[in-house]
Amino acid sequence: MSPKITGELLRQLRQAMRNCKYFSEPIQAYIVPSGDAHQSEYIAPCDCRREFICGFNGSAGTAIVTEQHAAMWTDGRYFLQASQQMDNNWTLMKMGLKETPSQEDWLISILPENSKVGVDPWIIAADQWKNMSKALTGAGHSLVAVQDNLIDAVWMERPERPSTQLRALGLDYTGMTWQDKITVLRAKMTERKITWFVATALDEIAWLFNLRGADIEYNPVFFAYAIVGMNTIRLFVDLKRLYDPALRNHLQLDSPSKPELSIHTFPYESVYTELQAICAALSPKDKVWICDKASCALTQVIPKAHRTPIPYTPLCLAKAVKNATEIQGMKMAHIKDAVALCELFAWLEKEIPKGTVTEISAADKAEELRSQQRDFVGLSFPTISSVGPNGAIIHYRPLPETNRTLSMNEVYLIDSGAQYVDGTTDVTRTVHFGTPSAFEKECFTYVLKGHIAVSAAVFPNGTKGHLLDSFARAALWDSGLDYLHGTGHGVGCFLNVHEGPCGISYKTFADEPLEAGMIVSDEPGYYEDGSFGIRIENVVLVIPTKPKYNYRNRGSLTFEPLTLVPIQVKMMNTELLTQKERDWVNEYHRKCREVVGAELERQGRKDALEWLIRETQPIV
Amino acid sequence: MSPKITGELLRQLRQAMRNCKYFSEPIQAYIVPSGDAHQSEYIAPCDCRREFICGFNGSAGTAIVTEQHAAMWTDGRYFLQASQQMDNNWTLMKMGLKETPSQEDWLISILPENSKVGVDPWIIAADQWKNMSKALTGAGHSLVAVQDNLIDAVWMERPERPSTQLRALGLDYTGMTWQDKITVLRAKMTERKITWFVATALDEIAWLFNLRGADIEYNPVFFAYAIVGMNTIRLFVDLKRLYDPALRNHLQLDSPSKPELSIHTFPYESVYTELQAICAALSPKDKVWICDKASCALTQVIPKAHRTPIPYTPLCLAKAVKNATEIQGMKMAHIKDAVALCELFAWLEKEIPKGTVTEISAADKAEELRSQQRDFVGLSFPTISSVGPNGAIIHYRPLPETNRTLSMNEVYLIDSGAQYVDGTTDVTRTVHFGTPSAFEKECFTYVLKGHIAVSAAVFPNGTKGHLLDSFARAALWDSGLDYLHGTGHGVGCFLNVHEGPCGISYKTFADEPLEAGMIVSDEPGYYEDGSFGIRIENVVLVIPTKPKYNYRNRGSLTFEPLTLVPIQVKMMNTELLTQKERDWVNEYHRKCREVVGAELERQGRKDALEWLIRETQPIV
Repeated sequence: MSPKITGELLRQLRQAMRNCKYFSEPIQAYIVPSGDAHQSEYIAPCDCRREFICGFNGSAGTAIVTEQHAAMWTDGRYFLQASQQMDNNWTLMKMGLKETPSQEDWLISILPENSKVGVDPWIIAADQWKNMSKALTGAGHSLVAVQDNLIDAVWMERPERPSTQLRALGLDYTGMTWQDKITVLRAKMTERKITWFVATALDEIAWLFNLRGADIEYNPVFFAYAIVGMNTIRLFVDLKRLYDPALRNHLQLDSPSKPELSIHTFPYESVYTELQAICAALSPKDKVWICDKASCALTQVIPKAHRTPIPYTPLCLAKAVKNATEIQGMKMAHIKDAVALCELFAWLEKEIPKGTVTEISAADKAEELRSQQRDFVGLSFPTISSVGPNGAIIHYRPLPETNRTLSMNEVYLIDSGAQYVDGTTDVTRTVHFGTPSAFEKECFTYVLKGHIAVSAAVFPNGTKGHLLDSFARAALWDSGLDYLHGTGHGVGCFLNVHEGPCGISYKTFADEPLEAGMIVSDEPGYYEDGSFGIRIENVVLVIPTKPKYNYRNRGSLTFEPLTLVPIQVKMMNTELLTQKERDWVNEYHRKCREVVGAELERQGRKDALEWLIRETQPIV
Repeated sequence: MSPKITGELLRQLRQAMRNCKYFSEPIQAYIVPSGDAHQSEYIAPCDCRREFICGFNGSAGTAIVTEQHAAMWTDGRYFLQASQQMDNNWTLMKMGLKETPSQEDWLISILPENSKVGVDPWIIAADQWKNMSKALTGAGHSLVAVQDNLIDAVWMERPERPSTQLRALGLDYTGMTWQDKITVLRAKMTERKITWFVATALDEIAWLFNLRGADIEYNPVFFAYAIVGMNTIRLFVDLKRLYDPALRNHLQLDSPSKPELSIHTFPYESVYTELQAICAALSPKDKVWICDKASCALTQVIPKAHRTPIPYTPLCLAKAVKNATEIQGMKMAHIKDAVALCELFAWLEKEIPKGTVTEISAADKAEELRSQQRDFVGLSFPTISSVGPNGAIIHYRPLPETNRTLSMNEVYLIDSGAQYVDGTTDVTRTVHFGTPSAFEKECFTYVLKGHIAVSAAVFPNGTKGHLLDSFARAALWDSGLDYLHGTGHGVGCFLNVHEGPCGISYKTFADEPLEAGMIVSDEPGYYEDGSFGIRIENVVLVIPTKPKYNYRNRGSLTFEPLTLVPIQVKMMNTELLTQKERDWVNEYHRKCREVVGAELERQGRKDALEWLIRETQPIV
């Protein structure tokens, strides 16, 4: 991978920073966050401004450019990748290391007195704006909202904002009409004395209206805003997308059943002026809910006295708890996904000895096999298909210049998933096609012990996911090992593969407690730089369980794996497993064989079925 | 325990709330926090204002009185105790329960429009003031600083502020002169470009100057403030206390070695005006460090542009990492403490069958035995000596009206500790003198498994204590059980038995990472309301350890128990223990026998030695 050449771009950007066309006085620094106007994790090409300016295309990172310097902050997952993708004009700021300054501290340490720092208010979250502004002001500088995006100003051939076709989901996929979702939302608003709710997150809007799009790769969402009042619903979206009669019917645009369930549609861009109009007509006691991670631009439209910022919106919370229809859909999606992966592994075993399979061709094969399954829509994230040392790059994505050939001598890690109309998958398996080393097996087994410790954990209702994170690490820690990422994230149902408000990570504290019906990933790992990477990931459903006692009637929860793909026994040092852990592996494999085996049989996929049967033999 | 009768007091307080002698307009609510002006956990009798007004004498709680209502917020440890100590005039607000409103929400729900809420700015922390003020202002009310304390106004016979004799500690106890501590502090200040540091926490001031007092029961501290600049040191304390020539010599008051190490002494009360004078002379770039939990009154003296509030001061952080001398002292203190407890248990075994030992007399006996040990100063907190159902009251303290007799039929829990000049102890043992029930043994064993899981945990450098909390709960959770308190707290060295900035609790997130030399408690429990309480507590030292690998050269840590008192084998269901856990118990008991046995022998305490030998037989 060769770095992007950025000298000329930076020269142009710095010229724009001095150009008073954009502001009354030149700015001394310009912040380029990685996001779009909807706090999206994955973004459309037109929003990839940070990648455009510095070359680094990971999912998280912030670039800052001053007259003299250009620096980019990212976290442990991306240290290696960022250092390879950025040229010498850029300084990589490794977040989480003690010696790395925060963006604020760095700016303060290098800026001349009374500097102005610019940022596009649409792509910085309100809470980040607040913190940054406070720190800069405290040091005698100021943070300035630059309405015209300066990257766009120097970006020739910037792509258009996508406007893909919308898909309406029926009750058999969603389990709840959008009308009922609006009613539940309004009940929450009434309960908290809220008169308006501004929805800015794309997955929340998609979930609310039971609509899906394809505006952002891997995420079946569409660019939109929604504003819900007690009697009105406003949807802001490219209006051309609503010409389809079926969609108009789904949204009851032409014949609403009740006036308060009538959706008023507006162009996407008019959200700012419409919100201004709403806010101009607020009564003194009216309160407006908006996520505290919404854009600074939109948040500041709401007068402070009326603004009630919340870390997680009621839609985010409601969406996280899957209903029976969604759970059933997720289970079906995971069975289909397992079929594709069993086929993949059976195929790999045959092909690898020929020396013709590469990281890219294996990923392509996985996609091809998934695409044969019913209701397949696309991948849920770029496949991480990595051999040997590439496996140690946590968010690796194979590129022609890094592409390695799968062999009998190296560990292979594949982290992949798909969007099906009935659900979203995300699964990681780490396998060896020859004979793994004792150290590889040892590390794999510690990771497996961590995976099982989380998956089999029993914990009281009300427990936050971050409290389970250490369970995944205990076996690694005992041997002096660790991994520098969280253990799990929320997973959407035919929605974003990463979603809030719950997860399993030592990095967060403000996550919401786990509840029955929530779905998260369980994915501890171990990464030996320059050598191999190991990760074992299942998507798991939070379910109620009944242990021996029921302290203070709180009730207990545990997890049920939705992912049903065998975990390679060859990679295990079974002597390091306890009897309880061995039982867990055997029961898990029994279920894989039973459930996925039946589907393989039905689909007549004989090779894969043979592979499954062999890979699910009980261990002793 | 009968509740305090508060009707007349509340009438007087409400009269004061309407009395314009104290403020320009009457206030509609008055907040009575539990603290003193130094964010102390334990407070002097003159500062027990919340107890005075409502009767509840637990360590945590806030009372709020309005014209119509009187309510008191406390946490799970104190629900039972508070309900017993308060009369009908008071509503108990159980913090942590979903249905309990926050103080802010409650005030907003009951106050008439545009209300004024008063509070003494010296006993509310700056950060609490800020949050409360923001919430009230948002709802159209205001928070008002009432300079004269209204509780003091209605408190006849309020005790004087204590001014006990000060004790200077030499290098053999502290391992570091106060001059060196000042130098290290100034280096930290230089590093962070800080020009002044205001010390308000009593244990930090005691630690900094290597002085101890006895102003607050159980905490060897004295009322003082300190302000340290780059060239000056100001100590604010009742000046009579510094007449003693030995003390003057310790502080070099009359012949400072260097001008910048000369201590200027001022009366305790003059801290406000002195800080005002310092702040009036600040240069534009000068910054003043003050703990964000310091009093609102003192914090607001520092102009905002110069104020750098910090969650943990450099003294708090330095004090938490014990040096070799302090560690050695803590070890010695724990051996002496174990001698006293071995004697106690040997004595209890003989006396209990007679039916003459009560919770109070057992606690008194424990104190008597500790007081026979060298360098004993006093208890480090009120002894929790509890039989049967009293054990389920987490912070129980036996009173004549609740005093139960120890018997062969009930579980006995004793949580006690002492201050010795060389160290502070805190130990809990739960024992049965007859035959424990299967359920009692089962619960005890789960608690023991949790205790061992923390004590034997290996974790990387940089790990925060709260990440270990779930280890202590896993065995309980597996059976549907839990306990509603944190697992551990920092422990001072001949200082407060509870100290920051580290601990092991799911409730905190902003704790500082554990470091070698830190000392915390490890005390999981289980409480069966109305029946029994179980807790197993050791004080443990964070030590480096060398597991098999050393991921990214981070280094690993684990704990070494400083407490060396046998854990009752009779209470264990050893079948529920793993071999690793049994090994831990046997190794722990071997060390108790070896180390404490030698000291018992030296002191000629034969009965206790016999008891120790019997109680430390290996289990299989």
